[in-house]
Amino acid sequence: MSRAVAGPEIERLIQLLSKLPGLGPRSARRAALHLIQKKDQLLVPLTQAMEVAVDRVVVCSRCGNVDTSDPCTICSDQRRDPHMLVVVEDVADLWALERAGVLNARYHVLGGTLSPLDGVGPDDLSIDALVERVSADAVTEVILAVNATVEGQTTAHFITDRLAGLPVKVSRLAHGVPVGGELDYLDEGTLSAAIRSRTPF
Amino acid sequence: MSRAVAGPEIERLIQLLSKLPGLGPRSARRAALHLIQKKDQLLVPLTQAMEVAVDRVVVCSRCGNVDTSDPCTICSDQRRDPHMLVVVEDVADLWALERAGVLNARYHVLGGTLSPLDGVGPDDLSIDALVERVSADAVTEVILAVNATVEGQTTAHFITDRLAGLPVKVSRLAHGVPVGGELDYLDEGTLSAAIRSRTPF
Repeated sequence: MSRAVAGPEIERLIQLLSKLPGLGPRSARRAALHLIQKKDQLLVPLTQAMEVAVDRVVVCSRCGNVDTSDPCTICSDQRRDPHMLVVVEDVADLWALERAGVLNARYHVLGGTLSPLDGVGPDDLSIDALVERVSADAVTEVILAVNATVEGQTTAHFITDRLAGLPVKVSRLAHGVPVGGELDYLDEGTLSAAIRSRTPF
Repeated sequence: MSRAVAGPEIERLIQLLSKLPGLGPRSARRAALHLIQKKDQLLVPLTQAMEVAVDRVVVCSRCGNVDTSDPCTICSDQRRDPHMLVVVEDVADLWALERAGVLNARYHVLGGTLSPLDGVGPDDLSIDALVERVSADAVTEVILAVNATVEGQTTAHFITDRLAGLPVKVSRLAHGVPVGGELDYLDEGTLSAAIRSRTPF
């Protein structure tokens, strides 16, 4: 027996909220109620922020980041080294690296990884644009910050081949023990990579 | 080192999303990115649903439920027994009971519980309105579906005193073992209540 608790407008709000990552049907219901009960403090400002996002968010034509300006905040930042380019699979990875805050470089979002089984070939990713950018901007180092998965590594090899012949250094992220990680819980691949890449103490 | 990953409009969207129950700063970032990347499928419809909520959601003047009509869907439902009233602390409890779907009654939302330490007295809850409704609608049974907390039970006692003298039966939810619950994980209070209220098998 499932009856409508409230009018269809509220049910629709709940149903759409439940599509957000991190919210299920039950927490979407709680979120909807929270929004409705905090109308002036939360529902109205969040609605306005989303209207702004609908109107103004664009994909950066240079790097593929999402922002309210094109070129994006990062591409327009004159203090960043224009000769170092960090290649990532998607925008979430770009944001994660920015949170770490260790880089002062620019980015290039591929839009995925090579995956023949899913029908994703080189033309579906922004690899040509990357090669062009490397030449045009006189990039001296490309850091391949792709995921440590089979698809990520395949894509990294493909990009390295495409960049061969250009005067650019290509590097990748180090493999090893995550900071705070316990050896007992790590897989053999990570452990052997950490031993191979051991550093003087 | 914390730099803006994107323009202030996106940072504001993330910050507001992180105020939803169930979303923290990290999952709010993921939700914002998901919204932006699914603009037509999710961001636009959700924004519209929230605009509708801003414009149309009201508190039911009879029972205190939130809905897009006043009286609300439940109060307007002619198939519900008008003589049975379920008293709940807040709208979330009302929705939870409706999901169970076992009741065909109407509700009365108190808006909280008596809590002298927090300065919540009888005048801050809709207790007077409850007593009036019981008389006016010729209610024959009031079910006190308040939380099994000290505040909830205090409030239940207070309401029972206020209803004394009116021709109405007052009941409360049964205490006992939750369905699917394991005895080993239950507290002593629940177990002794379950034994005291044991039923023939």
